[in-house]
Amino acid sequence: MTNKRFGSVEAGGTKFILAVADENFDIITESRVKTTSPTETLAECVKFFEDNPVDALGIGSFGPIDIIKSSPTYGSILATPKPGWEGVNMLHTFADALHVPIYFTTDVNSSAYGEFIAGNGQGSSSLVYITVGTGIGAGAIQDGQFIGGASHLEMGHLPAFKRADDDYTGFCPFHHDHCYEGLAAGPTIEGRTGKKGETIPRTDPVFDLISYYVGQLCFSTLVSLSPQKIIIGGSVITETELPAVRKYTSQFNNGYVAEPDWDKFIVATGVENNGSATVGNFALAKQVLEESNK
Amino acid sequence: MTNKRFGSVEAGGTKFILAVADENFDIITESRVKTTSPTETLAECVKFFEDNPVDALGIGSFGPIDIIKSSPTYGSILATPKPGWEGVNMLHTFADALHVPIYFTTDVNSSAYGEFIAGNGQGSSSLVYITVGTGIGAGAIQDGQFIGGASHLEMGHLPAFKRADDDYTGFCPFHHDHCYEGLAAGPTIEGRTGKKGETIPRTDPVFDLISYYVGQLCFSTLVSLSPQKIIIGGSVITETELPAVRKYTSQFNNGYVAEPDWDKFIVATGVENNGSATVGNFALAKQVLEESNK
Repeated sequence: MTNKRFGSVEAGGTKFILAVADENFDIITESRVKTTSPTETLAECVKFFEDNPVDALGIGSFGPIDIIKSSPTYGSILATPKPGWEGVNMLHTFADALHVPIYFTTDVNSSAYGEFIAGNGQGSSSLVYITVGTGIGAGAIQDGQFIGGASHLEMGHLPAFKRADDDYTGFCPFHHDHCYEGLAAGPTIEGRTGKKGETIPRTDPVFDLISYYVGQLCFSTLVSLSPQKIIIGGSVITETELPAVRKYTSQFNNGYVAEPDWDKFIVATGVENNGSATVGNFALAKQVLEESNK
Repeated sequence: MTNKRFGSVEAGGTKFILAVADENFDIITESRVKTTSPTETLAECVKFFEDNPVDALGIGSFGPIDIIKSSPTYGSILATPKPGWEGVNMLHTFADALHVPIYFTTDVNSSAYGEFIAGNGQGSSSLVYITVGTGIGAGAIQDGQFIGGASHLEMGHLPAFKRADDDYTGFCPFHHDHCYEGLAAGPTIEGRTGKKGETIPRTDPVFDLISYYVGQLCFSTLVSLSPQKIIIGGSVITETELPAVRKYTSQFNNGYVAEPDWDKFIVATGVENNGSATVGNFALAKQVLEESNK
């Protein structure tokens, strides 16, 4: 498979990141499109790939989305608070315009796959990628397959218990202070302190509290999915917080499950320039092209 | 593959259930061996299969166990409070004596597999089997494969939050009142009421509280594994409690994930006579025999 071009669409709530790569997944060209109305945004994205043709496309989208191939709404965005986007079939929009094979999954699955083939998941046969940003999400891979038989995972909404000194009422409109997203996503920092997270020094105790919940989520991941590795992306947890995250994960385990080497078990992303999802999309595009040629 | 005999070992903390089946998984003979010392118990089990030879064996064991084939301790029982059993290699003991292919996994994985091929998981490509008994455990299958890349799952120890009216201090020696096993396993009923669970009418409010936590665990399962079906076994949750479990699962979700048909999503076991693990072991024995003949 030589001289092929692979496309990536990273569909986010504020912007769409588009890229085209050669068969080595080296980026040839890229672009960003602001997320406005679906008609406007998707037309701009389609135009980019008409100007820069690809042989196959990987799409990693914000959710919730329908990723079950046998479903009548496969390829659609499901119940989202983003005005106009609910029910939009992103997969069909690109497929009808570009006539190439497309792999459609969640943004976190794309990142998980990128880390699996080109990042810190290389050499592991299973991993969970967790992002802690505006929301909290996760994608899980075992033996090259995504975990999730009925839909994609929603691990940010796993039940969590609060630290005794935390009286924050929570940020999740569905689960309030009873899930990880409600207790530890980026906006909870401003919710607790009244200040934007990026203006607060990393030594502030709020980051220890966030690390406590992310550690609890890592322990939840350990007992519910038992991966070989957990990779943490997103802007909230940096290398500065990882030691505290590992410490809390170990404390929650409390010697129950055989202790892994925490420094190797919980790691940061390995793909540079925040590019896990993009390289994951290229690889998934290549996979779907190979399958379509069988 | 005709006229083959498949063996099942259901290794439990109080007894080992042994069975031999024909190629249709119809049981030819069975036996029970009390769990005492490993030497004594395993010798009796081996003798049963010497008297009733099989072509392959499936073992579903209490845990924690090492089920990773590449591990030097594959086939062993890991850190267990049961005196004498830690470090015992159950797989090697049977393999050295019987010289047949053996599939070695957890008791809950065996049950999950039995429900997958012969119980209420038939027709689903993914499921999670949860048992609520002396402890709480789960086995998960997606597309015929067990989930768990580094070890088996330990979903009974997932973090849980307490109901506001519950002041019980918890039963889990590792996680106290912070995990489902500590809050909802069978012994928590006596821990809360001072009376054995089997002497308390199912209308007692304690069963509503247990259903609350099992519903929370089902919601945790929905967002962390996204299976097509959850099957609940064990003695604590019966058909009487299932409606409350479904109600609480839906309440925890609170409209976030698209609502499945709860009556079809959360169900009791379908294999009769508590035989999920046994038929699962037969099927896993057949699978390992077929692989060994390739």
